[in-house]
Amino acid sequence: MSEPKPWGVCWVVVTGASKGLGAEICVGFAKLMAPGSCIVGVARSSQGLKDTEQKVKQANPHVQFKSVVLDLGSADKEGMESALAPTLSTLENTALSKVLMVHNAGSLGDLQYVKNLIDHEHTRKYYEFNISSVITLNAIFMDYVKSLPSSVQCQIINISSLCAITPFKSWGLYCAGKAARDMFFKVLATEEPTISVLSYSPGPLDGDMQAQVRATSADDEIRTSFTAMKEQGNLLPIHVSVAKMLQVIHANKFKSGDHVDYYDEI
Amino acid sequence: MSEPKPWGVCWVVVTGASKGLGAEICVGFAKLMAPGSCIVGVARSSQGLKDTEQKVKQANPHVQFKSVVLDLGSADKEGMESALAPTLSTLENTALSKVLMVHNAGSLGDLQYVKNLIDHEHTRKYYEFNISSVITLNAIFMDYVKSLPSSVQCQIINISSLCAITPFKSWGLYCAGKAARDMFFKVLATEEPTISVLSYSPGPLDGDMQAQVRATSADDEIRTSFTAMKEQGNLLPIHVSVAKMLQVIHANKFKSGDHVDYYDEI
Repeated sequence: MSEPKPWGVCWVVVTGASKGLGAEICVGFAKLMAPGSCIVGVARSSQGLKDTEQKVKQANPHVQFKSVVLDLGSADKEGMESALAPTLSTLENTALSKVLMVHNAGSLGDLQYVKNLIDHEHTRKYYEFNISSVITLNAIFMDYVKSLPSSVQCQIINISSLCAITPFKSWGLYCAGKAARDMFFKVLATEEPTISVLSYSPGPLDGDMQAQVRATSADDEIRTSFTAMKEQGNLLPIHVSVAKMLQVIHANKFKSGDHVDYYDEI
Repeated sequence: MSEPKPWGVCWVVVTGASKGLGAEICVGFAKLMAPGSCIVGVARSSQGLKDTEQKVKQANPHVQFKSVVLDLGSADKEGMESALAPTLSTLENTALSKVLMVHNAGSLGDLQYVKNLIDHEHTRKYYEFNISSVITLNAIFMDYVKSLPSSVQCQIINISSLCAITPFKSWGLYCAGKAARDMFFKVLATEEPTISVLSYSPGPLDGDMQAQVRATSADDEIRTSFTAMKEQGNLLPIHVSVAKMLQVIHANKFKSGDHVDYYDEI
């Protein structure tokens, strides 16, 4: 007999689900979900989403994984709506115990000094992806879940960063975007007392983003220090950070809207 | 004999200079500037800039005011560059003692609850104006001033808000944008130790923005409380807040990159 699944039947949306942290979140969540649950993975890469689906099926064959191929950097409202439209309606709402949205998709952008951030088109597109699409997709998600019975738990997770609260040289675009998102979700938490809102800062993960940090950060000190972390094995395996995020969610000691870091005591 | 002007010969760029806080900043600064100084006022409204020019001339007839009619919500990099191009070159650089950029332009956006922020195009345009244009114009300004002698003081002022650090219901767009700007200028301060960077939160000003707050905030409590402030005479006259900002600059006790509020002790 399989062990009981603590989260019950869930409907979960995860952006940036094709690889890295997003994929690991899907896998980590799947293990906690009862049969009939559904994970909606949103990403640009169809192949990446197929890979994640495989991992989710291995983790829990009773969880459905739906791929939504969507470029959040260029999608309009209609594109986002039609991407999510077919998925929630397939769930038997009455059995639902939890709905979750994880805003994980994000990019570093040009890791240039502020004085060199002269490419207006890049900056404009950067925030369209890293802030605006988050806001619109979040509103679409909230519109879906507003008609659910009050017994259904709703949680919204913003994947944040230490950069949301600490300035890093040559990371102006990224720091500002993460600070914006943290504050946006604090406003949401203030407005919606029945929704649990968490900004989780996953720590320095041993993945693609850190490779980009080491390769392209304009600031020598930053490049050197993150290269040293990599060489000394001090970057975090992604699944370790996901496990901590699940502990934070389970312990439920944070105030809705809080920024919680991997390294924080629970 | 006229009193000496403490700031010496200055070159100053102020965005949103056609009215309200931006116009008052131009006037307040003009009084401190020596003959030969130049204020570049950037705004959409040609007539508004003419009005500000009049006020500046009254405050100090020896200060030049140059109007730059520009819509920062839609301008591209070339538009911003060509707008500033004719002004710095007219100054006798050797006499310069101070250059200042004041990022004052900004908008409230839709004062809707987060759950209703479904207009992707509005959100996209909102951040193009309130974040991206600030970043690009700032880089253009920094490119201009980098060749100045090290004796020339450089100061960059970000007009911030209590909303940068405190969530307000139905002000999600505005709060997130102001948080992004505060963090962006913290990064700048970290990168450029020779530049003085200040995020000044001017307090609740008795002007157009507060009128919009009272008229359009979705949240009843917010509308009621700001309406009461207006009725009880607790909104600040704009020139009073500008005077405080000048005190903060003069006292020079803030750490570069700090968020300083009107109500803070100096």
